[in-house]
Amino acid sequence: MLQDSLEFLFHPESVAIVGASENPVTFGYFFMHHMLNYGFAGKIYPINPRQPEIMGVKAYPSLEDVPGTIDYIIYIIGLNNAPDFLAQAARKGVKAVHILAGRASETGRPEGKQLEQEILKQARRYGIRILGPNCLGVFCPKSGISFGFEFPKESGRVGAMMQSGGNSTDLIHIASTRGIRFSKVVSYGNALDINEIDLFNYFLNDPETEIVLSYIEGLKGNGREFLELVHKTASLKPVVICKGGRTAVGSRITLSHTASLAGSANLWETAIRQAGAVPVKNLDQLVNMAVAFSLLPPMKGKRVGIVGAGGGRSVLSADEWEENGFSVPPLPQGIRDELKRRGSQLWDWVDNPADVSIMLGDPLSPPDVLSVIVRHPFIDFIAADAEEDPPFDKEAFIRRLTEDMEGYIRISKECDKPFVIVFDERSPGVNEMDSYMYRTRAELRTLLAKEGLPFFPSVDEAAKAVKELITYYQRRDEG
Amino acid sequence: MLQDSLEFLFHPESVAIVGASENPVTFGYFFMHHMLNYGFAGKIYPINPRQPEIMGVKAYPSLEDVPGTIDYIIYIIGLNNAPDFLAQAARKGVKAVHILAGRASETGRPEGKQLEQEILKQARRYGIRILGPNCLGVFCPKSGISFGFEFPKESGRVGAMMQSGGNSTDLIHIASTRGIRFSKVVSYGNALDINEIDLFNYFLNDPETEIVLSYIEGLKGNGREFLELVHKTASLKPVVICKGGRTAVGSRITLSHTASLAGSANLWETAIRQAGAVPVKNLDQLVNMAVAFSLLPPMKGKRVGIVGAGGGRSVLSADEWEENGFSVPPLPQGIRDELKRRGSQLWDWVDNPADVSIMLGDPLSPPDVLSVIVRHPFIDFIAADAEEDPPFDKEAFIRRLTEDMEGYIRISKECDKPFVIVFDERSPGVNEMDSYMYRTRAELRTLLAKEGLPFFPSVDEAAKAVKELITYYQRRDEG
Repeated sequence: MLQDSLEFLFHPESVAIVGASENPVTFGYFFMHHMLNYGFAGKIYPINPRQPEIMGVKAYPSLEDVPGTIDYIIYIIGLNNAPDFLAQAARKGVKAVHILAGRASETGRPEGKQLEQEILKQARRYGIRILGPNCLGVFCPKSGISFGFEFPKESGRVGAMMQSGGNSTDLIHIASTRGIRFSKVVSYGNALDINEIDLFNYFLNDPETEIVLSYIEGLKGNGREFLELVHKTASLKPVVICKGGRTAVGSRITLSHTASLAGSANLWETAIRQAGAVPVKNLDQLVNMAVAFSLLPPMKGKRVGIVGAGGGRSVLSADEWEENGFSVPPLPQGIRDELKRRGSQLWDWVDNPADVSIMLGDPLSPPDVLSVIVRHPFIDFIAADAEEDPPFDKEAFIRRLTEDMEGYIRISKECDKPFVIVFDERSPGVNEMDSYMYRTRAELRTLLAKEGLPFFPSVDEAAKAVKELITYYQRRDEG
Repeated sequence: MLQDSLEFLFHPESVAIVGASENPVTFGYFFMHHMLNYGFAGKIYPINPRQPEIMGVKAYPSLEDVPGTIDYIIYIIGLNNAPDFLAQAARKGVKAVHILAGRASETGRPEGKQLEQEILKQARRYGIRILGPNCLGVFCPKSGISFGFEFPKESGRVGAMMQSGGNSTDLIHIASTRGIRFSKVVSYGNALDINEIDLFNYFLNDPETEIVLSYIEGLKGNGREFLELVHKTASLKPVVICKGGRTAVGSRITLSHTASLAGSANLWETAIRQAGAVPVKNLDQLVNMAVAFSLLPPMKGKRVGIVGAGGGRSVLSADEWEENGFSVPPLPQGIRDELKRRGSQLWDWVDNPADVSIMLGDPLSPPDVLSVIVRHPFIDFIAADAEEDPPFDKEAFIRRLTEDMEGYIRISKECDKPFVIVFDERSPGVNEMDSYMYRTRAELRTLLAKEGLPFFPSVDEAAKAVKELITYYQRRDEG
């Protein structure tokens, strides 16, 4: 008798950590730390035969010593005892077990596969759901369950199901600097029991999840059922799928990573698109789509107004937006007339992109010019380049970057057009990090994230994300 | 009578700054600051009719008041007086004038074009070379001439000619965090006199420049002559060209930026490739190629050994290298045998990419495994993924990242194979910046730059840069 719902993974009332430890280089320590540090409100039962207390929490030598029932188990010790362990777990009313350890079917060794089958048999027999093996498990900030350090403690609207633990950790870290918060992230590894179909079903029906991200190496459930589920989900909320194992070698490696059969890359991309989801190639693109879907409205038009940079960067931005299928229409006469009326000396010269370096000393500031441009219907949205280094000294540099950004934030709130900020990433060394240039940028990113403005690490990545966003909503409209 | 050489731009014995100022929000202040701060060793003559001294340097009311001759002038005031000024300059023996101001032909206004023609006429008459107008001028760390703040003071082997001042500044800042240092960078704007042909000729013959980068919006000289010069240069040293104005709108904007006719994008790319240079689309790619050509040897083979990441990231890395035309061969039996002999428990499981997360607790550490892999001839080079966040606490996180990186540095020095490090960029906010995760990364980037290892901001960008590097050396070999 299987549990219908996976709610016990995300909202258990009691959790036992089998293998809990005070040794600070073990997962037994990490998971205890997470339960305490992320504020899990239910009961925590560390299981350890050699210690009466772990990190200030009463420990139990075995599961059977725990008083009452247990909803959920984080099982951190080796796999070999897992089948026997499930019988004990059943006697305590356990609904779900997260098995961290790997070295199972993904090793390619027959004994690994056999052990997994034994675990599955026992789990089915006792009606216990298994997450894993070979995965980091659950991050659910609302209930205080986590598998990583330095994850944001606030909840958000993005759900993610990831077949890789490393990719899950990176996803959460990368996305959080861009203002993204998660409802739930599940690292599900070998998917012996709970697989992509269970998880899609869960996210489809989860009111806390408005956008679904996934990293999938291979399907463990039925392919047709999976695609129907993706289609159903994507018709209600945006779905983004990063497929790992798109190439011959990639799929050779998925076998030894999560024992997954990767399938053909072309078939996958076509099938994902037909199901109405967005296919992406790496974690950065997964995060970019999360940012786009979280912080931009359902966009339709592809006419972009480009502002914020000097001449050379404006030229390259225009090129990259156009190369991604957008149009960058010239400034209409109406705007020129208005700029002239308001005293600009550049009314006949400024264009789209609007080169801000030529505005130095003009009666109209760059935000003044932008607020005129943004009100006109010749463009559908604004892309502001926020990264060029003005050739000024420290004080003027900081003032220029800050005033520009505050201008974008203000104007984006006043106008009815979507705003996309391009805020390049760079690779600071430790000296750069402490310089005003990088600190100013970091402060402005924090400001943008707080104000809920979407920013992207390059023009090309911004354009690709907006393009996929538009495609998604077009398909959804067409049914 | 024109000067044959542009050496006076880079190594003048005396420089006059016309428009020098103590007002800290002016270019007159910035350029004075740069002359003093970057350690220019020759004579500096601030020209300002209202101040006897600027920043501790004796100032002169006019050029004629300066004793003796002047080699080079940085002309920071408005354009209108420039034609008359050239007659004065001629009387002081001036060889070259950098004209900063814009609002000339690029405005599209007839008076701007006319003024430029007048300047050119006077310059030709007096045999004075003009850099600009509408540009930031010269960065030559060796002689202490600069146009920006926070530029590295050390010299390097990369030369750059950039038709945009903003792109020049960004290029220097971005490249310097990656370990790149410049021989000379020239921001040359409207190219009224000194144009891409002069500058290519200079860099072709400059023994201090081993790699030539350029950002070009449109040719001002003869197209055939330009391509022959690129071909000649590229047969001696790597040449990378970022073409601005590749699209219809891009080329509309080059007209209003540097009054350049952009030409057809397809023709440009074909012509650049035929001339043996590398075409790129943006500054990031320009920097990536500078890193590749500076820090990698002439590479031929496309078989890559991937190390350093956990399973999911390894799968995606393998996909992205293959999608860029590389091959990721499986681990040969010889390596498996050696790993087994040395006591690894994973000899039958580990592969290429070598998933490091499965090595936790194995008798062989990831650097041990890597040092076995790297010695075998089944691969041509190593790509190490250095960015995945291990799910460990602070101390173990720092130790893991640091030990891995030190391992790569050590092994790269011991082996005869090129090493490429993929060190993802991220967008830290101000809180992330102060966290151990970002500080550790920043410290490791500084270490890599110091040790001269090439690192790239993503797998895709690393693969694209190495691919272009291989193409360049192949073409050069074929003549």
